[in-house]
Amino acid sequence: MNRYTKGVSRKRGLKPGSLVHIGTVTGKKTEIHIMDYKDDILKEKDTYNIEDCYKYKDTDNMTWINVNGLEDIALYQKLGEHFGIHSLIMEDILNTNQRPKIEEFEKYIFIVLKMIYFKDDKLVVEQISMICMQNLIITFQEASKAGDVFENLRTRIRNPKGKIRKTKVGYLTYALIDSIVDNYFVVLEKLEDKIEGFEESLMVNVSNNLFNEVYNLKRQMIYLWKAVWPLREIINTLQRGEVDIIEDKVSIYFKDVYDHTVQVIDTIELFRDMVAGLLDTYLSSASNKMNEIMKFLTIFSTIFIPLSFLVGVYGMNFDYMPELKFKYGYAILWMVMLSISGFMLMYFRKKKWL
Amino acid sequence: MNRYTKGVSRKRGLKPGSLVHIGTVTGKKTEIHIMDYKDDILKEKDTYNIEDCYKYKDTDNMTWINVNGLEDIALYQKLGEHFGIHSLIMEDILNTNQRPKIEEFEKYIFIVLKMIYFKDDKLVVEQISMICMQNLIITFQEASKAGDVFENLRTRIRNPKGKIRKTKVGYLTYALIDSIVDNYFVVLEKLEDKIEGFEESLMVNVSNNLFNEVYNLKRQMIYLWKAVWPLREIINTLQRGEVDIIEDKVSIYFKDVYDHTVQVIDTIELFRDMVAGLLDTYLSSASNKMNEIMKFLTIFSTIFIPLSFLVGVYGMNFDYMPELKFKYGYAILWMVMLSISGFMLMYFRKKKWL
Amino acid sequence: MNRYTKGVSRKRGLKPGSLVHIGTVTGKKTEIHIMDYKDDILKEKDTYNIEDCYKYKDTDNMTWINVNGLEDIALYQKLGEHFGIHSLIMEDILNTNQRPKIEEFEKYIFIVLKMIYFKDDKLVVEQISMICMQNLIITFQEASKAGDVFENLRTRIRNPKGKIRKTKVGYLTYALIDSIVDNYFVVLEKLEDKIEGFEESLMVNVSNNLFNEVYNLKRQMIYLWKAVWPLREIINTLQRGEVDIIEDKVSIYFKDVYDHTVQVIDTIELFRDMVAGLLDTYLSSASNKMNEIMKFLTIFSTIFIPLSFLVGVYGMNFDYMPELKFKYGYAILWMVMLSISGFMLMYFRKKKWL
Amino acid sequence: MNRYTKGVSRKRGLKPGSLVHIGTVTGKKTEIHIMDYKDDILKEKDTYNIEDCYKYKDTDNMTWINVNGLEDIALYQKLGEHFGIHSLIMEDILNTNQRPKIEEFEKYIFIVLKMIYFKDDKLVVEQISMICMQNLIITFQEASKAGDVFENLRTRIRNPKGKIRKTKVGYLTYALIDSIVDNYFVVLEKLEDKIEGFEESLMVNVSNNLFNEVYNLKRQMIYLWKAVWPLREIINTLQRGEVDIIEDKVSIYFKDVYDHTVQVIDTIELFRDMVAGLLDTYLSSASNKMNEIMKFLTIFSTIFIPLSFLVGVYGMNFDYMPELKFKYGYAILWMVMLSISGFMLMYFRKKKWL
Amino acid sequence: MNRYTKGVSRKRGLKPGSLVHIGTVTGKKTEIHIMDYKDDILKEKDTYNIEDCYKYKDTDNMTWINVNGLEDIALYQKLGEHFGIHSLIMEDILNTNQRPKIEEFEKYIFIVLKMIYFKDDKLVVEQISMICMQNLIITFQEASKAGDVFENLRTRIRNPKGKIRKTKVGYLTYALIDSIVDNYFVVLEKLEDKIEGFEESLMVNVSNNLFNEVYNLKRQMIYLWKAVWPLREIINTLQRGEVDIIEDKVSIYFKDVYDHTVQVIDTIELFRDMVAGLLDTYLSSASNKMNEIMKFLTIFSTIFIPLSFLVGVYGMNFDYMPELKFKYGYAILWMVMLSISGFMLMYFRKKKWL
Repeated sequence: MNRYTKGVSRKRGLKPGSLVHIGTVTGKKTEIHIMDYKDDILKEKDTYNIEDCYKYKDTDNMTWINVNGLEDIALYQKLGEHFGIHSLIMEDILNTNQRPKIEEFEKYIFIVLKMIYFKDDKLVVEQISMICMQNLIITFQEASKAGDVFENLRTRIRNPKGKIRKTKVGYLTYALIDSIVDNYFVVLEKLEDKIEGFEESLMVNVSNNLFNEVYNLKRQMIYLWKAVWPLREIINTLQRGEVDIIEDKVSIYFKDVYDHTVQVIDTIELFRDMVAGLLDTYLSSASNKMNEIMKFLTIFSTIFIPLSFLVGVYGMNFDYMPELKFKYGYAILWMVMLSISGFMLMYFRKKKWL
Repeated sequence: MNRYTKGVSRKRGLKPGSLVHIGTVTGKKTEIHIMDYKDDILKEKDTYNIEDCYKYKDTDNMTWINVNGLEDIALYQKLGEHFGIHSLIMEDILNTNQRPKIEEFEKYIFIVLKMIYFKDDKLVVEQISMICMQNLIITFQEASKAGDVFENLRTRIRNPKGKIRKTKVGYLTYALIDSIVDNYFVVLEKLEDKIEGFEESLMVNVSNNLFNEVYNLKRQMIYLWKAVWPLREIINTLQRGEVDIIEDKVSIYFKDVYDHTVQVIDTIELFRDMVAGLLDTYLSSASNKMNEIMKFLTIFSTIFIPLSFLVGVYGMNFDYMPELKFKYGYAILWMVMLSISGFMLMYFRKKKWL
Repeated sequence: MNRYTKGVSRKRGLKPGSLVHIGTVTGKKTEIHIMDYKDDILKEKDTYNIEDCYKYKDTDNMTWINVNGLEDIALYQKLGEHFGIHSLIMEDILNTNQRPKIEEFEKYIFIVLKMIYFKDDKLVVEQISMICMQNLIITFQEASKAGDVFENLRTRIRNPKGKIRKTKVGYLTYALIDSIVDNYFVVLEKLEDKIEGFEESLMVNVSNNLFNEVYNLKRQMIYLWKAVWPLREIINTLQRGEVDIIEDKVSIYFKDVYDHTVQVIDTIELFRDMVAGLLDTYLSSASNKMNEIMKFLTIFSTIFIPLSFLVGVYGMNFDYMPELKFKYGYAILWMVMLSISGFMLMYFRKKKWL
Repeated sequence: MNRYTKGVSRKRGLKPGSLVHIGTVTGKKTEIHIMDYKDDILKEKDTYNIEDCYKYKDTDNMTWINVNGLEDIALYQKLGEHFGIHSLIMEDILNTNQRPKIEEFEKYIFIVLKMIYFKDDKLVVEQISMICMQNLIITFQEASKAGDVFENLRTRIRNPKGKIRKTKVGYLTYALIDSIVDNYFVVLEKLEDKIEGFEESLMVNVSNNLFNEVYNLKRQMIYLWKAVWPLREIINTLQRGEVDIIEDKVSIYFKDVYDHTVQVIDTIELFRDMVAGLLDTYLSSASNKMNEIMKFLTIFSTIFIPLSFLVGVYGMNFDYMPELKFKYGYAILWMVMLSISGFMLMYFRKKKWL
Repeated sequence: MNRYTKGVSRKRGLKPGSLVHIGTVTGKKTEIHIMDYKDDILKEKDTYNIEDCYKYKDTDNMTWINVNGLEDIALYQKLGEHFGIHSLIMEDILNTNQRPKIEEFEKYIFIVLKMIYFKDDKLVVEQISMICMQNLIITFQEASKAGDVFENLRTRIRNPKGKIRKTKVGYLTYALIDSIVDNYFVVLEKLEDKIEGFEESLMVNVSNNLFNEVYNLKRQMIYLWKAVWPLREIINTLQRGEVDIIEDKVSIYFKDVYDHTVQVIDTIELFRDMVAGLLDTYLSSASNKMNEIMKFLTIFSTIFIPLSFLVGVYGMNFDYMPELKFKYGYAILWMVMLSISGFMLMYFRKKKWL
């Protein structure tokens, strides 16, 4: 399966703005979850009808529409038209190969992020797109919202006295991004566990299999880095307070997420160094182990070489070989051979070869 | 054959602006394909006469002249003179060693790009030059237009209701570049297939041949990178809306191609890392396999060393060797030798050398 | 134990500004040490009550409140409220995974630094946060103040005629940072001792253990670098004289610390090169030693090969082998064998293999 | 011979502006070649007298004075004084260790370039300095003008109808630099030939000698890169049209040379990658070949080990060894040994070791 | 001995501006050398009394005070006070761990440089500090002025007609820096000699000792680079003409030193590449030589393996072995064995293993 270039070529030759889903096909229906709140009012709704969302445009309440699933092209066509989103942006939302980025328009801003988590011990990267406009945020996820990184945020919104009830679109934007970035730390902890696991394995045993696993880890790190690195620039843009739709006072919150992002990037770089170290250690250990075997066996055989020579000597059939006639010849030879072995062992030990 | 420096030195000493074809010689005639359209009118024409193109200068219709083949110097001389293109630019068009670039002049802009495709499993890089002026774009290809990356674009132009019929030079410029960039993804998918193929081959077998192929892949990646990297800057220039001839409203489309280009560059970098990983894996596997053989054979021979010593001992001709007289001596010796072999195998297994 | 990602995920899902201690849990009570001075007046106090500090806000005297321990959340809640520190900053103070940074606010500046020292031969990194406001600095340490890097500074403050008694918040900020940076040199000296120790060990012996220790050193260096590198930017900010709260005339002092920081960074980079060199030397020595053994043993066995062949020849049972009947055959064979050995040794010596 | 630092220290302690020739001493007389032209007038002259050049200062005609040889200090002293060139610049002209650079003065600009060519298969770097002033360019070469890179340019000047006859100092400056840069392509083609030669050699044979040659090539590449890299900045300066003496309309020509220079740099970088690849391939091939030998020989000897053991067994002198008495014992043993050999060969083939 | 961190920690905890000598202790008395000149007047003086220098402050003559030795703290205290130099600067002068830098103050500029020379074949780095004020320059050296790099400059000053007699502080600053930079070339030549020496040694012999020496050279290169690199920025500052105390017209001289510095840096980088190449060559040669030995010995032993087998065969004691009875059996066996040896040698030669 093509992982990095998954089917992008399918779009080739279509006119720009043609909606095509590019990504893993799940076959699930696209679900919509709506949270509409202001001060102590909260309306929450689950639906499959995009039409149910139309009324939340241009209201005074803050609304968060969470769309799960990217495969219902018709739904996206309607959504784009009703909320006035450029067709190229709609195209980007459906294409899960996007690089994290931010784009500003007159009426809304468009943000693409990557949500990262482990699923069955495999690193999964899911694309999250956000359209933030006056009093309304629409988020798009590849998979179901069940168990996603926003659950804590929903709980905070449901709390009638939560500070978030009084905030506007900038704060919700922040809260969404913060949820994603906070989750990176969970992934990093798992990765550190893995690295440490490999470090311990390397102490015990060295197998080619391990080499492949560490290499795999290295590649995951590169992938992760590519997903997180552009985030820095995105949050920086938001923090500078130049985006109209974002209220100025959340700037300090974005500064905070910015610091976290830098921390994530720093940690990934540290891990990359560590994984590179693992590979070096692997290679050094493997050659070390091999050398140890070769050394043992070579020394072993070397001890026998002069002995074999000696027994060869007394296997010769010369008529005149005085030692052969001597009664204690055989016993003396054994003693000589034992002495030679002992002397050689001592010599090897002295040379620190043993 | 010189690949990177193909005959550039032929031009040495000529005065600047001298038209010389530098590139692979095909001997084919230069074909011209003209598409002239406006709203619901479309005139299409194939010709070998450059004179047929003269009338499309300074008209109200949008015209796309596609010149295939760079070897007819006379044709190019006429073309340059009639359309008022600087002789240095004409020289650049004929020199297929150009680096991708954009140059702005008062009346036109000049763009050089690289079209990349696989032909008989070999990566081919073909230079595309574009002259974009008021209501007219002239494109230059090295080879025939049959099967080129613009076929989908032509179909869209032929559609009488296509949006493209209503657009100007900026949009067509975009559509041409977009066709080229979209095609990069096809190449990337093929490359990923290759990388994965090599990964699987490495699991099964390790040959020096494989090493050379992976090295070749690595070089292709460098070459690709060099062809795509400058594109970023070109599209950036177009997108900033500073080029007069390009209408402002296509800026968002160029932003889109820009994102794709960055994606292509990112993917190439990822692939370079992966190919570097392949080489490391190759080297590790090769040394691993060698070590495995050496280990087996060394252990094998080591087991026989003490046995050979023993049979040597009882081949000696000492007059007094009591074991030789003993009736069961021979049988006991076999048992001793079997025990030694067994013990050594156990020892090697315990040491995890086997 | 997770070292780099120590429990950050614990904070996931909490609303921003929630105070959570992230770091090593010691269970010790949070101690507060207050120094309040102006000209020849000095009041010093140890307390566990944050309320005791309230009165030092907005006085004419210069006050330094040193808080040791980050685990008493309630204390920090009160402190933040009374001194008007943003909840996100309070959160940062309690999170020991911070990257060194500086943040300016209207009434105060917030600085995070890393204090580095060796404890039981292990490199320890302790986070120091500083809140600097008009006539007041509050510093936060992870551990007890006993034996920290500020002891010399306290002595200088206690000296009634010390220049520091006449200075304001900027100078004390400088003095605190200077104490931390000066201490880096102590760490660097220890590290250089270690590097030199390894260099000497490498001359004498080569063990896989050594490899791991050097690798560990390499990782410490990376870690150190990450802790010191951002300091450059922080001090640069302070030195430019753009921070309101810092009086202009301490700018030259910050320039001095800046130079020291650059020196520390330079030295770390030098050490990283040296450690990389150690690893290369290790690998070269290890392969060298192995080669030496293999060479010795191979040459040794090679000398015996023709001798063993010869004794084999005269162990054959052919009826007609004239040498066997010859009286001095056996003696001559010994002489032949000695000559062969001698000749081979000479040959090897000539070839410089011995 | 010191190649990179050739005698610079000889100048140590002299006062600045002291004229000292630093470079390879040839002992040849300094030749001067003068071309003075305007429209259809051309005067050409060869001389050894610097005084002959004096009259070309401040005329209406365009003059190109080409000075070959840097060893006649007296000549240079006079030249500097008459044409009003700063003594530090005169010093730079005579010092062939200059890095390519451009310096602007009120009345003239000073340019240093490196001319590169192969002589007897050795890469030679020759320094070219240029003083460009109103209607006059003086160029300085290390060696004779015979066979230099400017011959084509001279031919173009000699052509009475050549466009160059109507141009000013800016165009001649361009034409000189263009001649030098065009020549780089010739060198690059030769280098590519060499690289390809090595690639083919590596297929056939692997010798330590080859390693040294490839290393040498690598160093030449570094040297080349150092000579060409600064050129980019120089031409950029000329192209920006900020240099007074250079007429604005040649800017497009400099843009063209700039593109060529970038192309040269790109190609050198590509070649460096290729040479690095050659070294890797060399190392891989060498270890491959060694492994192949070791494998063959080890397998060969391994097959004989059990056979030798068996013949040893039947060489023992036990009184009771029934096989020895059996008539067909000897024949059966041979069959057994042949079977063992066959079986082992099959096993090795199955394991893909053979 | 700690080389890079030599005793800096001794200063920890002292108040800023405390004068402490940090560097190699020599125990020599601090010598002062004064040159006071204007046009044709020159007064020169050697003294140990700092008070003798006081009168040269604020005179019309140009004065150069050269202080040799950094260990007389009292002297430095007086000097700093009399000439009004900031205590932090005095501290920097005594600390020989400074990084090259320039600092501007109202009345003077402070420059730190590194003087580099070989002493007994060891690279020595000596710190030179300069205080440049109106008509006065004070330089500080670690060691005696005998044999330092300024001797030629002194000679030029002593020449009553020297141009330098008419210049001001800027020119002397230039002359001092120029003397230091010129001396770098001497060091570079020595280093190149060393590199070439190693290159030749590598052709002849490969020892682990050589490896260590080359590594040492590599480290020296890094050290050198660190000492020279910041110089670029310093001279750039001086050359831009923004420093008040430096007269504008020496700008061109500083441009000249700047070029030299860039040249030095370029050469060091080249040398670093060359040393890296030496290490690669060393490793390749070492493994090559080892392989050669192993190959020879393995082939040697392989030839004897079948021979030993054969003599083993005819050492067996089977009752029925017809060959043994045959009269020419023994002679034929010898011929067979010679043929086998010959055939194997031919085979190895054909395979190019020999």
